[in-house]
Amino acid sequence: MSDVEFWYEFASTYSYPAALRAEEAAAPMGLQIRWRPFLLGPIFHDLGWSTSPFNLQPAKGAYMWRDLERTCAALGVAFTRPDPFPQNGLLAARMALALPDGDARGAFSRAVYTRQFAHGADISDPQTLAEVLEETGQDAGAVTAQAQTPPIKDALKAAPAQAQSYGIFGAPTWRTSDGELFWGNDRLEDALGWQWGLNGVQTL
Amino acid sequence: MSDVEFWYEFASTYSYPAALRAEEAAAPMGLQIRWRPFLLGPIFHDLGWSTSPFNLQPAKGAYMWRDLERTCAALGVAFTRPDPFPQNGLLAARMALALPDGDARGAFSRAVYTRQFAHGADISDPQTLAEVLEETGQDAGAVTAQAQTPPIKDALKAAPAQAQSYGIFGAPTWRTSDGELFWGNDRLEDALGWQWGLNGVQTL
Repeated sequence: MSDVEFWYEFASTYSYPAALRAEEAAAPMGLQIRWRPFLLGPIFHDLGWSTSPFNLQPAKGAYMWRDLERTCAALGVAFTRPDPFPQNGLLAARMALALPDGDARGAFSRAVYTRQFAHGADISDPQTLAEVLEETGQDAGAVTAQAQTPPIKDALKAAPAQAQSYGIFGAPTWRTSDGELFWGNDRLEDALGWQWGLNGVQTL
Repeated sequence: MSDVEFWYEFASTYSYPAALRAEEAAAPMGLQIRWRPFLLGPIFHDLGWSTSPFNLQPAKGAYMWRDLERTCAALGVAFTRPDPFPQNGLLAARMALALPDGDARGAFSRAVYTRQFAHGADISDPQTLAEVLEETGQDAGAVTAQAQTPPIKDALKAAPAQAQSYGIFGAPTWRTSDGELFWGNDRLEDALGWQWGLNGVQTL
């Protein structure tokens, strides 16, 4: 009961700093992060949106890019605006699901975000993703093959509906063990504090 | 140059805790808040929206109400969900503009938010607003009359376009003296810190 679920989509901008920060922030509180990749496309589609709301609402998009730049500067990590945006994170998400939840999935996911948002790489490119797998200690061929199997494809296909059933509408979203949701990179600490409180109550 | 502009709309949910917190957070840093009431309706209209995005996107709306409840609990202030939502804040915004920026406008604005979000009052009701004026030490008759004059009406009518020219797309938005924007109640501290840094540079 000491886990906080991290629901993330590889194209999601604020999921980049969120992914980099999550485990380091959780560890001192004795909390673990569960890595829950999903896709926002089907959720946006249900709202009648064909692309990111940051593209549909130019003023909000311009703000987000500037805010993300500030956020990354404060965090001391590089930032490059991906082009095109949003990127297609389907294969990356399948690979993440093909890796065991924990260190392997976390390291891979962080590295995909860094490729995209620090180095401007195209994360729909299988070669780029193979490099990320290798650099995070995985067997790129084996993981790529497993990512294309029906159980993985089906798991990712089911993820958006599961997210919606929890009330999730965007990324990053933190979900505590009692089902509370905290939306946004800047709500990580609130989510960890909430889970910490729950755990304290349970062990009294 | 030690001011932070607080752009707020009376129907905006997160502007309620923002309005209550702003001056208390700014004072220890020697910063002042400039109260800039505006209307989101025309900005939403430009996006093709007929109501609040929290109504247009039910999952996001449900999250917001729960999150606002948590935010108010953490702040130690009462919370009642307004019905209907969003409220019509036109008259309240005109009255705010009819009051001098500073203590008078701040006290009135905080009291309007408290009526709406703590007590569930209808803030389009002139009688409710007259009571708020009286309880914050104003001459309700005089302010109500001034609120209906062309200069005040024109000033409020011009406010959304001015906000848009700054890149503002929602409320609350904090704007520092160099034009940086910080969107959301939870970005108040970031905005104050940014302005504090600017002032420090200027006085060196």
